[in-house]
Amino acid sequence: MKVGFIGLGNMGTPMASNLAGAGHELVVWNRTASKADPLKQQGARVAKTPAEAARDAEVVFSMLADDHAAEEAVLGRDGVLSALPKNAIHVSSSTISVALSERLTKAHADAGQGYVSAPVFGRPEAAAGKQLWVVAAGPKAQVEKVRPLLTALGRGLTELGERPAAANTVKLSGNFLIASMMEALSESFALAEKCGVERAAFLDVFKSVFAKAPIFENYAGAIAKGQYTPAGFALRLGLKDVSLALEAGRAAEVPLPLASLLRDHFLTGVAQGRGDEDWSALGALAQERAGIKKKQG
Amino acid sequence: MKVGFIGLGNMGTPMASNLAGAGHELVVWNRTASKADPLKQQGARVAKTPAEAARDAEVVFSMLADDHAAEEAVLGRDGVLSALPKNAIHVSSSTISVALSERLTKAHADAGQGYVSAPVFGRPEAAAGKQLWVVAAGPKAQVEKVRPLLTALGRGLTELGERPAAANTVKLSGNFLIASMMEALSESFALAEKCGVERAAFLDVFKSVFAKAPIFENYAGAIAKGQYTPAGFALRLGLKDVSLALEAGRAAEVPLPLASLLRDHFLTGVAQGRGDEDWSALGALAQERAGIKKKQG
Amino acid sequence: MKVGFIGLGNMGTPMASNLAGAGHELVVWNRTASKADPLKQQGARVAKTPAEAARDAEVVFSMLADDHAAEEAVLGRDGVLSALPKNAIHVSSSTISVALSERLTKAHADAGQGYVSAPVFGRPEAAAGKQLWVVAAGPKAQVEKVRPLLTALGRGLTELGERPAAANTVKLSGNFLIASMMEALSESFALAEKCGVERAAFLDVFKSVFAKAPIFENYAGAIAKGQYTPAGFALRLGLKDVSLALEAGRAAEVPLPLASLLRDHFLTGVAQGRGDEDWSALGALAQERAGIKKKQG
Amino acid sequence: MKVGFIGLGNMGTPMASNLAGAGHELVVWNRTASKADPLKQQGARVAKTPAEAARDAEVVFSMLADDHAAEEAVLGRDGVLSALPKNAIHVSSSTISVALSERLTKAHADAGQGYVSAPVFGRPEAAAGKQLWVVAAGPKAQVEKVRPLLTALGRGLTELGERPAAANTVKLSGNFLIASMMEALSESFALAEKCGVERAAFLDVFKSVFAKAPIFENYAGAIAKGQYTPAGFALRLGLKDVSLALEAGRAAEVPLPLASLLRDHFLTGVAQGRGDEDWSALGALAQERAGIKKKQG
Repeated sequence: MKVGFIGLGNMGTPMASNLAGAGHELVVWNRTASKADPLKQQGARVAKTPAEAARDAEVVFSMLADDHAAEEAVLGRDGVLSALPKNAIHVSSSTISVALSERLTKAHADAGQGYVSAPVFGRPEAAAGKQLWVVAAGPKAQVEKVRPLLTALGRGLTELGERPAAANTVKLSGNFLIASMMEALSESFALAEKCGVERAAFLDVFKSVFAKAPIFENYAGAIAKGQYTPAGFALRLGLKDVSLALEAGRAAEVPLPLASLLRDHFLTGVAQGRGDEDWSALGALAQERAGIKKKQG
Repeated sequence: MKVGFIGLGNMGTPMASNLAGAGHELVVWNRTASKADPLKQQGARVAKTPAEAARDAEVVFSMLADDHAAEEAVLGRDGVLSALPKNAIHVSSSTISVALSERLTKAHADAGQGYVSAPVFGRPEAAAGKQLWVVAAGPKAQVEKVRPLLTALGRGLTELGERPAAANTVKLSGNFLIASMMEALSESFALAEKCGVERAAFLDVFKSVFAKAPIFENYAGAIAKGQYTPAGFALRLGLKDVSLALEAGRAAEVPLPLASLLRDHFLTGVAQGRGDEDWSALGALAQERAGIKKKQG
Repeated sequence: MKVGFIGLGNMGTPMASNLAGAGHELVVWNRTASKADPLKQQGARVAKTPAEAARDAEVVFSMLADDHAAEEAVLGRDGVLSALPKNAIHVSSSTISVALSERLTKAHADAGQGYVSAPVFGRPEAAAGKQLWVVAAGPKAQVEKVRPLLTALGRGLTELGERPAAANTVKLSGNFLIASMMEALSESFALAEKCGVERAAFLDVFKSVFAKAPIFENYAGAIAKGQYTPAGFALRLGLKDVSLALEAGRAAEVPLPLASLLRDHFLTGVAQGRGDEDWSALGALAQERAGIKKKQG
Repeated sequence: MKVGFIGLGNMGTPMASNLAGAGHELVVWNRTASKADPLKQQGARVAKTPAEAARDAEVVFSMLADDHAAEEAVLGRDGVLSALPKNAIHVSSSTISVALSERLTKAHADAGQGYVSAPVFGRPEAAAGKQLWVVAAGPKAQVEKVRPLLTALGRGLTELGERPAAANTVKLSGNFLIASMMEALSESFALAEKCGVERAAFLDVFKSVFAKAPIFENYAGAIAKGQYTPAGFALRLGLKDVSLALEAGRAAEVPLPLASLLRDHFLTGVAQGRGDEDWSALGALAQERAGIKKKQG
């Protein structure tokens, strides 16, 4: 298929690469053009604007940092919306707000274009290794059409019905679950440590009793070691995603007290200068609250 | 070995049974004597008091409901402490407070007796199937001596050093982790549901992306179905354990804001008449807060 | 002075009336035109659009329900911005977001117009009785010019410097303080009640020991009586204002955990159908959590 | 009357002094005997044990630091209980737990002695100036008998019925209200400060709009100035009292989420070395969370 790809960051680059590797014809765009070089070497054409990447495409993916970037690249001047052919489909994989997803749904429908929301679970390594899990929602026929592309990205796919925003809700809930587990681990490690239990021993129990899931084991390991740089997923992005979950909760009238607590901890981390550390730095905040360790600098 | 066993509830009975099955000579005691019948059929002798069960034992296990029961059976009149031979060892598997564990440590040491703290992770089915995970702490030689008994109970053992209370801290932290995951799931399901995502679909994502650990999958399933009776572990016991974690945190000067939040939700559950439901009924509370469903009756 | 007045709700009407009573020449506008009748009888002219109310004014007040209404009436088509003469001043008394206040600051400056932010403390009765307290911020000369108008509205004025958004921050903080006190009272009354202390007796202590301030006494009285309708200030507006405080906190990187807690309680109230009750219905939520009383219907 | 007085700390000394000044015959006891000197100079006799202070008394007051001290002085060896004449009355003014108050109620009744719970609101200066507010509960005839003594202590009295523990509940609720207001102020000041509003200006608004009650104005002033030493009421006592409120809430099945939040903040303060500062140091914690100011040393 002819595929446009908008956004070549840590996640977007390996995703686009996998699509190219699966034999699709790519036109890519990134704000900082130099990031497109690896894709160029795989045979992709580099566009000057999102519109150009969309112009002849059957499907355009977008994988952008936040609402602001997504809004600009899709709805802005020379954006995807302005050029995507009728019946072509925009697949949005960015972690964006439920509200923006609903606006995009309407905008594309009004333009006679398709829109599938398909955020992914997994970090850059998982993207590179085709180990992402995709959650997709949108009109059945459209999901059907892009299915070969989605399955080229990862190890599996859950379909969540015809309403695109449902997939965004689930993605936000997923990040909220990870953050919750990290907070629980952070408080537990602080308690164990101050009660004289080695962090390594507590980690051992956690692995034996609870988690076979790598997603939790890895974070538990980071918290046990107190290793928060380099960031796999930055704390300020954790703040963003939990805030988006709270916004979705407000719109749907669902109180999320645990998400509120997480938001305050992430915001404290940002305010105290940890925004660029990994979001598992919740572990450091728990230690500081407990007087175990002072923030350096 | 000659083994006393104090406390034949849902957990104690299969644990004692496994010890008998491993060839040890048992004397058992339970407040309600009739609960000892199955053990009697396995050849155990039934004692009239905890003291009697301890009198000739090399090792006495206790598996009791809470601090109050443990205090009475060990430190009370005709309790274990009054009769256990010098150098014999009390293995406490109950989920009790860090403070009581420290009192027992001292009391047994003063009496020339041994004391190992060895709480277990797993529900009654796991106990029956020798699938418990044991966390043990106490003087090295004592842990060594009771190791064959501990390994007869489950699938593995983590040793946590010489201070018995460390094992209690880790057990409380473990229950706190489970409760945290349930709260996060409860809020996520409420959000997903009110945003139009089927609970079954969300469960599917959870299983695919996060948890291979049965401990989390099972609770996620209960919350997805809204099935909170019969209780595997009663909500009022969840309140007890999270409260004990908070007490340990206060003593060690470790703030646990997520545990505070959980305590308030469990206490709300008790106040609203859900104390005897499963502790995963956090899921029902989240639905009620969101106006999805009213408490019946 | 020639004064435009935009927004004739419960607060705007008595405020405008006081300006008219102080001898100023008014042109008023309200979305629902019939609400302008009482002002008409005081001699005010009724405009068809916000722009018309602003056209010949030296000063235009706006007193609107929320960001959406303020944005439309000021920045929208036929809005204040489009018609206000150069050097005339827009006094914004609405409780709006810090972010919108900053946008208005810039928009008016770009148009050569003045902008003073002047939210007020007090309920409709206080507005009618000239008992409001005004907090004002903006360029010194502009505040000076509108001072006679501000002092005609209430019993006093605090100036908060040259940055208009500062006044919005303080207004939001003020509403947050009131909500905090109500939450604390709500939980205290629930505790006292369930421990057998009459709500009237607790109210008596509160009045004797703590508050001479009518603002707190009145809310304590409402919570003691459980009288939440008719709403003086609707619970959904409480949700709005606490949410705005949280947004301001996020922008400035200030975690506000108590505000997060209040937001969740207000959102629970809205989700459970209490959005149109008075915001002191926090008292009912506390009773329900404690199992004292079930929500009717 | 012949009055015993147990506990001559910052509060007990001026209270006892006022009783002596009102013409009552005092026998006083304090753990550190030297603290009794000022009372001796007012003509009081100094006892060697609580029992001795109680032996010939018609009424014995106790004003002690916490449950532990109260338990020892009343129920311990040579305690009040062992010596108080039948029909004499123990007036407990300490801020103790509801549970201990209930145990004392029973113990005194079993011994044929009277028991009135009469905690006080006000700091040492208020005690010295007879400005305390007393909340009293107990059997009507007993309250009647001690009324002249209670009114000699302060500016007023609220009676709370026949159940002594009711007065303890109300005292704990009162301290919880103060702490809530301080937390709300702390967060508001941090928000205002980081948004560029001078702390003094925000204080000015608070005084004008909200509080005529000195109790709140004083704390707001301390937070505005960041002046937390010397402590009027130590942060670790704040932790104690909020914890007692939570315990009372648990026993009565009343969730108190705001109290949980305060407990975590007080515990953080203690863990970070602020236990001996004034409890209004909540203001410093809010600044640190917001990255405004780092904890020294």
